[in-house]
Amino acid sequence: MHRRMFRTLLLVLTLSLATAAMPSRADEGMWLLNRPPVKLLQQRYGFEPKAEWLQHLQKSCVRFNLGGSGSIVSPDGLVVTNHHVGSDVLEKLSTPDRNLLEDGFLAAKREDELKCPDLELNVLWEIEDVTERVTAAATAGMSAADANTARRKAIITIEEEAEKKSGMDCQVVTLYQGARYHLYHYQRFADVRLVMAPERQIAFFGGDNDNFEYPRFDLDMCFFRIYENDRPLKTEHYLKWSAAGAKDGELIFVLGHPGRTQRQNTVDHLRFLRDVHLPTHLNNLWRREVQLAVFMGRGEENRRIALEEYFGVQNSRKAYTGMMEGLHDPELMRKKVADEKTLRSTVAADPENARKWGEAWDRLAEAMGRYREFYVRYRLQAALSRCRLFDVARHLVRLADEKPKPNAERLPEYSDSELDSLYQQLYSPAPLYDELEIDRLASALSLFAEMLGGDDPTVVRILDGRSPRHRAEQLVRGARIKDVAERRKLGEGGKEAIAACDDAMIRFAASVDAEARALRKRYEDEIEAVQRASYAAIAEARFARYGEDMYPDATFTLRLAFGTIRGYEENGRRIPAFTDFAGLYQRHKERGGVAPFDLPDRWLERKDKLNPATPYNFVCTADIIGGNSGSPVVNKAGEVVGLIFDGNIQSLVFDFIYTEEEARAVAVDSRAIIEALKTMYDAPWLVKELTGTK
Amino acid sequence: MHRRMFRTLLLVLTLSLATAAMPSRADEGMWLLNRPPVKLLQQRYGFEPKAEWLQHLQKSCVRFNLGGSGSIVSPDGLVVTNHHVGSDVLEKLSTPDRNLLEDGFLAAKREDELKCPDLELNVLWEIEDVTERVTAAATAGMSAADANTARRKAIITIEEEAEKKSGMDCQVVTLYQGARYHLYHYQRFADVRLVMAPERQIAFFGGDNDNFEYPRFDLDMCFFRIYENDRPLKTEHYLKWSAAGAKDGELIFVLGHPGRTQRQNTVDHLRFLRDVHLPTHLNNLWRREVQLAVFMGRGEENRRIALEEYFGVQNSRKAYTGMMEGLHDPELMRKKVADEKTLRSTVAADPENARKWGEAWDRLAEAMGRYREFYVRYRLQAALSRCRLFDVARHLVRLADEKPKPNAERLPEYSDSELDSLYQQLYSPAPLYDELEIDRLASALSLFAEMLGGDDPTVVRILDGRSPRHRAEQLVRGARIKDVAERRKLGEGGKEAIAACDDAMIRFAASVDAEARALRKRYEDEIEAVQRASYAAIAEARFARYGEDMYPDATFTLRLAFGTIRGYEENGRRIPAFTDFAGLYQRHKERGGVAPFDLPDRWLERKDKLNPATPYNFVCTADIIGGNSGSPVVNKAGEVVGLIFDGNIQSLVFDFIYTEEEARAVAVDSRAIIEALKTMYDAPWLVKELTGTK
Repeated sequence: MHRRMFRTLLLVLTLSLATAAMPSRADEGMWLLNRPPVKLLQQRYGFEPKAEWLQHLQKSCVRFNLGGSGSIVSPDGLVVTNHHVGSDVLEKLSTPDRNLLEDGFLAAKREDELKCPDLELNVLWEIEDVTERVTAAATAGMSAADANTARRKAIITIEEEAEKKSGMDCQVVTLYQGARYHLYHYQRFADVRLVMAPERQIAFFGGDNDNFEYPRFDLDMCFFRIYENDRPLKTEHYLKWSAAGAKDGELIFVLGHPGRTQRQNTVDHLRFLRDVHLPTHLNNLWRREVQLAVFMGRGEENRRIALEEYFGVQNSRKAYTGMMEGLHDPELMRKKVADEKTLRSTVAADPENARKWGEAWDRLAEAMGRYREFYVRYRLQAALSRCRLFDVARHLVRLADEKPKPNAERLPEYSDSELDSLYQQLYSPAPLYDELEIDRLASALSLFAEMLGGDDPTVVRILDGRSPRHRAEQLVRGARIKDVAERRKLGEGGKEAIAACDDAMIRFAASVDAEARALRKRYEDEIEAVQRASYAAIAEARFARYGEDMYPDATFTLRLAFGTIRGYEENGRRIPAFTDFAGLYQRHKERGGVAPFDLPDRWLERKDKLNPATPYNFVCTADIIGGNSGSPVVNKAGEVVGLIFDGNIQSLVFDFIYTEEEARAVAVDSRAIIEALKTMYDAPWLVKELTGTK
Repeated sequence: MHRRMFRTLLLVLTLSLATAAMPSRADEGMWLLNRPPVKLLQQRYGFEPKAEWLQHLQKSCVRFNLGGSGSIVSPDGLVVTNHHVGSDVLEKLSTPDRNLLEDGFLAAKREDELKCPDLELNVLWEIEDVTERVTAAATAGMSAADANTARRKAIITIEEEAEKKSGMDCQVVTLYQGARYHLYHYQRFADVRLVMAPERQIAFFGGDNDNFEYPRFDLDMCFFRIYENDRPLKTEHYLKWSAAGAKDGELIFVLGHPGRTQRQNTVDHLRFLRDVHLPTHLNNLWRREVQLAVFMGRGEENRRIALEEYFGVQNSRKAYTGMMEGLHDPELMRKKVADEKTLRSTVAADPENARKWGEAWDRLAEAMGRYREFYVRYRLQAALSRCRLFDVARHLVRLADEKPKPNAERLPEYSDSELDSLYQQLYSPAPLYDELEIDRLASALSLFAEMLGGDDPTVVRILDGRSPRHRAEQLVRGARIKDVAERRKLGEGGKEAIAACDDAMIRFAASVDAEARALRKRYEDEIEAVQRASYAAIAEARFARYGEDMYPDATFTLRLAFGTIRGYEENGRRIPAFTDFAGLYQRHKERGGVAPFDLPDRWLERKDKLNPATPYNFVCTADIIGGNSGSPVVNKAGEVVGLIFDGNIQSLVFDFIYTEEEARAVAVDSRAIIEALKTMYDAPWLVKELTGTK
């Protein structure tokens, strides 16, 4: 599945934000809502996306702060997304006696809807182009690092001003990796409640085995509701549900928040990913997958508290494996080399262009070379944050340092516009479990020793004369910040409170922070700054060569994709676009009903009540990626006909390149959702709310 | 469990054979049969091991060529070992319709005993000290590399002569890493048949979760029979079975073939293991564990053909994790540093000693530094051999090159004394499965690209313009050497046959062989040769300091260990020495009977017939390591009271250091075996043969 984006994936964004897009072919593109592919849609499908149509879609979509997409589907603020987008919340709301992930949930009435501890939804309200103001901040003669800093300050100032003016959450989005900057105004909703979730068994039928595969049989859905002032949100911007669904070959649209693509990376940058980043990242995923499996094997409660993280790791592992295979495919690399050659020779052919943009590729190559020198050390810092207590401690330590500074001088995640969201995360009452926290931290500490060697000064310092496991036990067991009130006290107490605090984890986070900050600064000044400047130059070169009708690489902001519902051929075998409930039961039988091909009891007991011919999952050619999970698939009338939840295995190269031969997005059919709610879940009121019938 | 040693483990041996032992304390030691710890046993236990007693034990023990130990337990050549030592054979004898691993096996009568495709057992018959002759081959003034080569040639010549004379299989064993050389004469048995194996569920109850843990509840046993001239072996050298078992606190002995220890490694060498070798090896294990789990998830037949390998990887991963944790334990390292300091200052205190031995440590440190430069490239070669077809192809290619050379000039694995065993492996009719072979080879090819980078000339050459998976598919599907007759033709056809052969895998193996041989030569000349010379010097220094009453590091040859049956304390909790059948059913119940805590049907149905108080597994202080699996535990009368099958988690540091505070060897009780054979397996004739009753 394309899981909701994890914080780790958000981190990856800092690694390589790619720039401008190549000329579009086929159903390619993750288009900006303020630069829709009007011509393309007219040419290919004779369809004209009207401004009001787009506006309404835009304001009906939501972004999940933990990563993922969704949409509002009733005038009372009902939100639909994937089960695997909501699963993080389901886990946090579970206890040893109430396992919502496994058993599902249905609020019998509105008062029973469950408040989610740290979920936040954003609705994009307005977009403004602020490119000139941001780029003007960096003046001629500045070093790349200084220019980068200047632009970052300008961005924070712009956000600050806009928030004051509009009262909304405002974020400047870096597009085409720095060639364009747009200011996004968001409505922020922090009171979100759980309405309905099916059992994990049916939502994630087939587990890791069927993940990213097709044909598929998953009811990957979950319902929430937005509240304002303790009452359901009243809104005119919501999507109508299509009871009729869509047909094979029909034009459809996908609106969601693709997290990251790297289609505009230079060849050198792709080589870096192939030879350095992906192998390192995959090693960590393999390692963690095994360690979590071992942890879960120790007992039922261990399994309950770690399962979500385990599925997340498995999901990333499968996705990264596909990406790695893509970069090892000589055909893909040949294509990238040829494209780059064309663009570079166009630039070289004109002396003025050559002067402005010609050196960008070599500068990037140099930067990637420098990055190799401290890549491991820099990336290791992120490993510590897998331990949530460490993550909390680091935030508290940094918050105390950053908050007294002027807004524009702070690390961006502590700027005023980010603080509400940060506090919601930091003071979340979601439970933390000592044993799992120890396992995470011991694993991270050992990773330092494995990668840097046992005598490395950093390793010696962080282990402080103990083995990784003993050190982790000492830090976790000694952490009082498990208590939310303690966190709040430290968060509000500022520098003095932190300095006076003898909490083991706080002291540990404080002791490693100087090195962590230095590495981050080095990355930002030596790598990110060069990437930003060089990729912006390459984007301009691309605009000059191909015109401006291009989509930027994905940035976890709202995008419009389009395509048709269409099957494909795989090794000479025809894969139809739709599956149905009959297929679900057939696969269950084929695999002996053994996990992960087991079904919830109700699905066995009520099998005969279900219409077996109901379309269940379908594939389409829309251009999506991780972060798109939960995106509505809508028809020309703007009605929901499906719910994106995955891409097939052939789509895993979408990070680098779009192809429509075999690659497909995978969705749950709107008809299956209605049929399941009616037949399996006894939720007639939910069906009524969805379909708007009385 | 301490699994039978894999070929990969045998390879590890080449990495670091450690030398002489420190003065013995406690129940420490893996003693040579020709240098038994007579004084120690007298002092600690007032027991004197008589020469005939030792001789009889020695000649009753067998070594399994695939790694592992066992003993002859009836005058008709009945052999007992662990289920997990026999499991490789059980898998090879299985088909989609007959799964011996899962369902077990019992020969109803002798004619039904199943011939094993490539199993070979060795019985140690005689030992001769040939140190002088081997060391004399290396004369003063030779470089370390030349000296190493000269000694190797001498060894092959000695073996050749001895085989001609005795008609036995003769092998020179390098002890104390080159300070001593002993010639071992073996009886070789190549006709071995399967008699009885229980179901995997009961043999490996608790799976990876309980592996290396205690308390424990595994019936890890398996029976074979040696045949000679198509008839059961008749022998006077066999161990009597103890129906009474042993008592808590009783003195016991363990005879088996510990595979490798590294207790005499220098501190620099240990650092190399901690910072380079173990992290690399663990990464590969984590990676492979996940890849095999994914492979098995695709269906029941995939699971059947890959499960043994999967368990092997899991087992190594758990063992190596324990070793890594040991080397990250500051206490262990401090001890090693102190011991080395003592020995070095003793050597330095005497000018003559300083001249002879003083430089050894620094030379080793230099060599380990050089090794870091090509470690990855050298170790990658072994990854290819995970694909058995590649392994066969490489052997065929090398055999053709090596066989025409004089015996002493060949690579040692192609010397005359090794050929019978090699042919048995090479022409084994054990089935090979395309899908698994492709998975193994694709994984290995991808590993090259991941570790060396996609543009590395070696990587470009081995992939030949394809992705790793496509290349693997091309090579495996195009391999005719799946057919044993084809292999035999090539093996017998020599150089010309290989040169004329257009088999895809043969051509591939031939194309990579020059580089593989060059890397091996570099390793042998620059690393192994220095290690051999320097460790021999250090061993002499240790003899001079502590006397000669020491055991050498393990070398997968027969050793005597001793100790007492004794529980221990863990985190303040008392762990008794024995478990019983009642405990098995209790653990089954506690864990809900869910795999890996499920039980075979017969164990559920016949539960009431079993005496629940029967001692089942026990722990003892004997000094063991991987390769000891299947070793008999005998009492002072030389009777079998148990069967070693594992060490507890605390014993995983035994590779580097012996401790008897918590570390224990784990065994199946001889009484449990009798009770299970009677009650569960309806095998009265086997009980009679074991106990010698009529």
